[in-house]
Amino acid sequence: MSDTYSVEVRITPRQGILDPEGETIARALENLGYAGVNSVRAGRLVRMEVDAASADGARSMVEKMCEELIANPVIEDYEVLVHEGEPVG
Amino acid sequence: MSDTYSVEVRITPRQGILDPEGETIARALENLGYAGVNSVRAGRLVRMEVDAASADGARSMVEKMCEELIANPVIEDYEVLVHEGEPVG
Repeated sequence: MSDTYSVEVRITPRQGILDPEGETIARALENLGYAGVNSVRAGRLVRMEVDAASADGARSMVEKMCEELIANPVIEDYEVLVHEGEPVG
Repeated sequence: MSDTYSVEVRITPRQGILDPEGETIARALENLGYAGVNSVRAGRLVRMEVDAASADGARSMVEKMCEELIANPVIEDYEVLVHEGEPVG
């Protein structure tokens, strides 16, 4: 018996890793006149629905996906959030 | 007097808009042997620190940034989350 879990993966550049996309956004915001904006970091968000026997099972399956495919653990950190029964938008 | 707010923007493809990155991830996961994975959607995550007089001020400033620069409202939905005093990772 398995349930469907809505899972969100948040992938961000690791501390100390260059983030050209974040830097570009920061510069563009400054050029547009926004002041007081700092530490802009750009990352990725992946949402999916996963069939698993438990929330823990869904989490460890998605963590494995992150290591294998979704994230690049050398330069990215990832965080897996599992919401039971909440449909993906 | 202004405080620094840690703000997160979650940008996702709008319902009904094609999401080639999400589809590619879904296909690759299937090829790697993962079963029961559905509705994979890929989006973006932008974090920043913003100086503003209030949390509401920070939120409306970042919503304006999204309309002007960070998101493409024609094909993307965005959500702005404000955390007071929490440093950006």
